[in-house]
Amino acid sequence: MRVLDRLDELYAIGAGPGANRLGGSVEEDEAHDLVAGWMREAGLQVDVDPAGNLFGRLAGRRADLTEVWTGSHLDSVPAGGRFDGALGVVAGLEAVERIGQQERTLAVAAFRDEEGCRGQGCVGSRALCEGWLDPKPAAFVEAHVEQGPRLEQAGAPLAVVTGIVATARGELVFEGEPGHAGTTPMADRHDALAAAAEFVLALRDTAGAVDGAVATVGRLEVEPGATNVIPSRVVVSVDVRAPDSERLEAVLAVVPGETRRAEAVTMAPAPTDALRGELSRLGLQVVELPSGAGHDAGVLAAAGVPTAMLFVRSLNGGVSHSPEEETSAEDIAWCVEALDGALTTLASVE
Amino acid sequence: MRVLDRLDELYAIGAGPGANRLGGSVEEDEAHDLVAGWMREAGLQVDVDPAGNLFGRLAGRRADLTEVWTGSHLDSVPAGGRFDGALGVVAGLEAVERIGQQERTLAVAAFRDEEGCRGQGCVGSRALCEGWLDPKPAAFVEAHVEQGPRLEQAGAPLAVVTGIVATARGELVFEGEPGHAGTTPMADRHDALAAAAEFVLALRDTAGAVDGAVATVGRLEVEPGATNVIPSRVVVSVDVRAPDSERLEAVLAVVPGETRRAEAVTMAPAPTDALRGELSRLGLQVVELPSGAGHDAGVLAAAGVPTAMLFVRSLNGGVSHSPEEETSAEDIAWCVEALDGALTTLASVE
Repeated sequence: MRVLDRLDELYAIGAGPGANRLGGSVEEDEAHDLVAGWMREAGLQVDVDPAGNLFGRLAGRRADLTEVWTGSHLDSVPAGGRFDGALGVVAGLEAVERIGQQERTLAVAAFRDEEGCRGQGCVGSRALCEGWLDPKPAAFVEAHVEQGPRLEQAGAPLAVVTGIVATARGELVFEGEPGHAGTTPMADRHDALAAAAEFVLALRDTAGAVDGAVATVGRLEVEPGATNVIPSRVVVSVDVRAPDSERLEAVLAVVPGETRRAEAVTMAPAPTDALRGELSRLGLQVVELPSGAGHDAGVLAAAGVPTAMLFVRSLNGGVSHSPEEETSAEDIAWCVEALDGALTTLASVE
Repeated sequence: MRVLDRLDELYAIGAGPGANRLGGSVEEDEAHDLVAGWMREAGLQVDVDPAGNLFGRLAGRRADLTEVWTGSHLDSVPAGGRFDGALGVVAGLEAVERIGQQERTLAVAAFRDEEGCRGQGCVGSRALCEGWLDPKPAAFVEAHVEQGPRLEQAGAPLAVVTGIVATARGELVFEGEPGHAGTTPMADRHDALAAAAEFVLALRDTAGAVDGAVATVGRLEVEPGATNVIPSRVVVSVDVRAPDSERLEAVLAVVPGETRRAEAVTMAPAPTDALRGELSRLGLQVVELPSGAGHDAGVLAAAGVPTAMLFVRSLNGGVSHSPEEETSAEDIAWCVEALDGALTTLASVE
């Protein structure tokens, strides 16, 4: 299966274990070059925008109509999975190649640095949306692995995404006082790591008590970081997500510092209906799910592009951002079928 | 005051803030070279043993008698203080120069890598004690800043150390499962950092409930360490100290892994009596304290060298392993006086 072979080729870039194509790395560049080659083989016109986002266009019969886009991202987290991001680009390319020329121009997009491991995510799609030069597309449909266990639990290969959760990201600094590990009585300590540990657990417990919310401390750095010195300074990352702003704020009540917030976004009726109709036509269960992760689709939706998202079942309990990430060949075939149908619908009408 | 000037010279080695003469670094070498020069100026015979420990000897009148040693270490933790270790070497040199020739040979020692920031401490003195080629000295007296608040609280400049606490050091690994920070429900997570945070707090609380015990996690490293990935692996350092093995084991009950233990050691009667007598002669309060920190004196005592320790008052609440470490010129003068008298007593008799 060509889609799987191409995912393997992308996965082989960089040193393992797992995918290591961080945003801004030479490995991300290598992935973009590889996909640009496949686009050219498919007869698409390749363009790269000033932010480095890659587009492969199949010109429509009517140049006066706005375009229909599909795609996702090619960067990964460190030691990431085989499908996250890459599937949406490779499956989108497969679908567009099958569809062939329609009334509207079809474009496959690969956005830069979606993961944002070193800061805010969706770097490429944000830059694009902040600097529109050309008309907005008529629709954007992003296929992506679910990265969660709900489709596996429902026994369904695909889901139509209803919206993307509200998010907050930030960095907290805990200040303490350094001191000798052997001579400073426990009662006299101001241990920055103990304070950070209390925060890690308070954040976990608070998020656990808010329905649909999740919160993660993924980075924690200790200074001075010596075995026999009481920690004087600890920096932690904070990542909070919730179905709406109210629940986001309920979790953020235990975060003593500023965070960058992103509002929840709702998917657009027209492309979402196209996906829903296609799932019915294929005889599949029409599961509807919110997305707990941010995606380029969320950025485009917030910028006013009529946007839809298609989730593809994740196996292994939905594990993602890990080499254990898994999606079956059968489900990928359903994904290409659904994209094929929905993009055809969207590209063939005014 | 020459002792303070010399402490300033040592403190100026390497980049600040604070002392940065880690064991095994070029800065530690530079400190050893500087002190070797001062030893030569004082007319001492300079030797370096195979472990890199520095000795400055003032030959006694009777070559048949074993030597009397004083000294400490010249390495520091990262961003350490001005007095920790360096005071014992510089004050010991000052005292020996004042004392002049006695019956026994007097030696000032500077041991290598006492702090052991990257592993077990007292690297130099351990190597020496494991590889004795020459006769053991008749006595070793180490002067050192207290690195705690007890002398400041007692209003006394000096203390005679009764013994050194039992210690345990180790490294623990917490294994979790990586996963996407946005899509893995809180209830389904196996977050290695949350497990490590629970350990940090359990260790703190347990040590706080055992009289005289302290416990520290000074290092904590998170993998993969990305903002949006649930931590899959966390490595922490563990440092536990207690007045005796029973209390050490009581704290170690919450440590799920192996540690390297060092037994508590007791100081020897003869050199300890010499220090006690000298404090009385100087009209000072004779405070007796256990040491919460390990020292080269503990290594020599455990190896059968008759050993004593003199603590010098730490100011600023006893802060140490920090640029805030402080000891007054007056107290340093008392320290040199007490070493002068005690070493004279020990070196003048069989």
